[in-house]
Amino acid sequence: MRDDSNGGGGGVPHLSAEEFRELGHRMVDWIADYQARLESFPVRSQVAPGDVASKLPLHPPEEGLGGVSGWDSIFKDLEDILLPGLTHWQSPSFFAYFPANASGPAVLGELLSAGLGVQGMLWSTSPAATEVETRVLDWLAELTGLPEDFRSTSDKGGCVIQGTASEATLVAMVAARERVRRRGAPVDSEWVAYASTQAHSSVLKAAMLCGVAHGADDKAHVRLIETDARYAMRPDVLEAAIREDLAAGRRPFFVCATVGSTSSGAVDPVRAVGEVLARTGVGDAGGWLHIDSAWAGAALVCPEHRGLLEGVEVADSLSFNPHKWLLTNFDCNAFYTRDRRALLEALSVTPEYLRNAASASGAVMDYRDWQVPLGRRFRALKLWFVLRHYGARGLRAHIREHVRLGECFERWVEADERFEVSAPRSLALVCFRLKPRLGETPSDTDGRNRALMERVNASGKVFLSHTVLPGVDGLPPRYVLRMAIGSTTTEERHVRAAWELLASSAG
Amino acid sequence: MRDDSNGGGGGVPHLSAEEFRELGHRMVDWIADYQARLESFPVRSQVAPGDVASKLPLHPPEEGLGGVSGWDSIFKDLEDILLPGLTHWQSPSFFAYFPANASGPAVLGELLSAGLGVQGMLWSTSPAATEVETRVLDWLAELTGLPEDFRSTSDKGGCVIQGTASEATLVAMVAARERVRRRGAPVDSEWVAYASTQAHSSVLKAAMLCGVAHGADDKAHVRLIETDARYAMRPDVLEAAIREDLAAGRRPFFVCATVGSTSSGAVDPVRAVGEVLARTGVGDAGGWLHIDSAWAGAALVCPEHRGLLEGVEVADSLSFNPHKWLLTNFDCNAFYTRDRRALLEALSVTPEYLRNAASASGAVMDYRDWQVPLGRRFRALKLWFVLRHYGARGLRAHIREHVRLGECFERWVEADERFEVSAPRSLALVCFRLKPRLGETPSDTDGRNRALMERVNASGKVFLSHTVLPGVDGLPPRYVLRMAIGSTTTEERHVRAAWELLASSAG
Repeated sequence: MRDDSNGGGGGVPHLSAEEFRELGHRMVDWIADYQARLESFPVRSQVAPGDVASKLPLHPPEEGLGGVSGWDSIFKDLEDILLPGLTHWQSPSFFAYFPANASGPAVLGELLSAGLGVQGMLWSTSPAATEVETRVLDWLAELTGLPEDFRSTSDKGGCVIQGTASEATLVAMVAARERVRRRGAPVDSEWVAYASTQAHSSVLKAAMLCGVAHGADDKAHVRLIETDARYAMRPDVLEAAIREDLAAGRRPFFVCATVGSTSSGAVDPVRAVGEVLARTGVGDAGGWLHIDSAWAGAALVCPEHRGLLEGVEVADSLSFNPHKWLLTNFDCNAFYTRDRRALLEALSVTPEYLRNAASASGAVMDYRDWQVPLGRRFRALKLWFVLRHYGARGLRAHIREHVRLGECFERWVEADERFEVSAPRSLALVCFRLKPRLGETPSDTDGRNRALMERVNASGKVFLSHTVLPGVDGLPPRYVLRMAIGSTTTEERHVRAAWELLASSAG
Repeated sequence: MRDDSNGGGGGVPHLSAEEFRELGHRMVDWIADYQARLESFPVRSQVAPGDVASKLPLHPPEEGLGGVSGWDSIFKDLEDILLPGLTHWQSPSFFAYFPANASGPAVLGELLSAGLGVQGMLWSTSPAATEVETRVLDWLAELTGLPEDFRSTSDKGGCVIQGTASEATLVAMVAARERVRRRGAPVDSEWVAYASTQAHSSVLKAAMLCGVAHGADDKAHVRLIETDARYAMRPDVLEAAIREDLAAGRRPFFVCATVGSTSSGAVDPVRAVGEVLARTGVGDAGGWLHIDSAWAGAALVCPEHRGLLEGVEVADSLSFNPHKWLLTNFDCNAFYTRDRRALLEALSVTPEYLRNAASASGAVMDYRDWQVPLGRRFRALKLWFVLRHYGARGLRAHIREHVRLGECFERWVEADERFEVSAPRSLALVCFRLKPRLGETPSDTDGRNRALMERVNASGKVFLSHTVLPGVDGLPPRYVLRMAIGSTTTEERHVRAAWELLASSAG
């Protein structure tokens, strides 16, 4: 953006300030209109593979757009090419996966972050990017009732925004291994990480990335622990596995407890898991307990849900995604640890060209040492705006309304004798399915549920996703539908319409 | 954003569409004004540690802002708290590190990405997010003259946007290890990675993350190869190191060639490095050659700079950052590989809840399998807008103007007998310093250069950073200043003013 139109030095056609204003306003308006039109689009994109690509030129343009009027072609492509190719995560009828909340205040934060264009790898490369992030995460710790020693104001703890929960888990795992190594474990130990069968795939992926797991099928180094009837990790099975590994000379170093699993929102018993680490000596050896609460963590803004994290004080780290259910655009993962030194020891590399007086003084934090990448944009702006715009009261209202809608949906399912609730409702997530018919094979029941889901998704009116829950009490695994309520603008009428569509499509 | 003011279900105070429009326009205008005011701010922030934090409330707000007028407090804080705490990367007088180009078209792309709020982890979760990304990267491959087999249209290659070059290097390293493992190397091999002493710190960090290096001082598993008089990797020294490691039973698996090093823009001889891999049998064993061209890669849009990548066809992967010098906001790393299967084999984990018909058909790419995180926003929009707005011609003009300014600066340094150019100019990066005075110790020369840099940076008029270059021909290492020209709006007058300030501050 420049003051002089049509660029300055070298004839580079930058947008002038006036052109940027004009196009910026137009884009803001386009987004506002998009939001207003959301209910008119099929929720899940109906294009076939290659449809979008077939409408894009094969070769890049030699000439640019030549000014504001040239952008008409871009806005036209947004309508003709882009919109049909989108699955609309912001639709109030998007119930698949977990929500990815956008909100007006967060969009303004992203816009500002892009407009400032600062890169906060070091405190000194934009002090505000670091200090606002730290303070805002301390606010969030207070709002969610996290223990003092996860906050930046504690002696040894701290907090940072990671991109995603996957990165948070990877960072925790790498810090864990380094801590155990520094307490005396040989570097060529046979490292073993633990999580429940219901843990997110990112735990296995982190183990593959960091070299602990040798391939996605390596069950020896990532032990997936059996769950109970509520799909929560069984601490007794965990303990047996750890003792077996210790006896075999392997090195347990990392346990991921899931609070709000992706499949069914199951909650591992954090305290009991921590006690296993203590009892087996894994904790004393430096072993690490990480809590992945990517989705459910947002609900902690409501005191009535704090029981989810009972025992959190025994954990070494915890992360959740304001970008899921806390109105803060993707990507924004809030990561807390009681042992910031472990992160720094695992992740710090300081070449000469990054040395500076502030870092050398020890008075500042350089967030590059808390994450995988070196560079980082001003990540906290959108969270800052969200917390200020909505206030604690607004955030609680957001969560409570969706939990209420989850309860409604659960009741409707229960009241229809063709359906059943397949797992205990977790907050605003309901797993459900068509009941088996008399004499029907499990595979046929699964097939009817799959067909139902495909039918309602193909209608374009809603979008749900599925999972397979392990069998309990000797029963086979079950294919179930997931109703994950939580999109920013979802209201009761959308949930009701979804239910009515399901009920009328059930046959 | 909602149609009805003051929120709907549950009393959540979402911005209405009208409120979003109003605040969006205001934020766009604030950014346009910020850009216009950039030259009035000290380039490097002058705050002390804690200054920003001291102006932020200790506790989060219970009540929200209550509507548009409440945002006055945010805009006030942008002026009073934020601006003084920023180091202004978009200032035309920012010459530190490498540039992080923002541009109007890219800001509009980020804004749109946030406004759409789609999450493109799978093709099916927003087909356009994947297909636009693939096509735009193919465009970029054409614009930069990359070989056919790095493009999505090739049999085995492909391309993806990573967040940063650090992530690109990590992904390449993990893919390399898995490929070598699948060709028969035992999982407990002693893996060794190689890069020059001038390679970016992210190579070592990637090795630490993936478990190859045991700590930042592990010289046994990350071998930093000596460079020549131009700071380029010496293939003969690389070959000797590899042969030594092979003889000792260690497992060479990854070489990172740097094309445009961070310190001085040095260019490793890609073809000769590839020949070493071939000659030592490391290539046949699955060993991988990655090219880190984070900064210099952008210059490949100009045919006259394609020599930088002479020999690229022997590489397995390559990445560069449009977010550095190609007018596309951070974060945007373009990653190309000739072996997409190696990535998938190293990074794919498919839990039930992500299974879908499109993925199962094999007809689509799911970019989650090409990167560290699972989730991803619509990353390609800003690059799409940049390539269309500027066109190939505009991008070449941008690079050429900065290279021209680099030549100007180099001449001015050479013409002043107090100064010397410390390394061959690389594109728009000039390393220089005050010459040693007669009888001065090297440490005193370094001290005068350090003091000069601190003096000009403290003035607020420019911001430069430094590095230490290894000694050549038996001389000690030298502290040198780096003049990295490349900010979006830098013109000759800014470079000239920087030089005049340096010359007049040199004493």
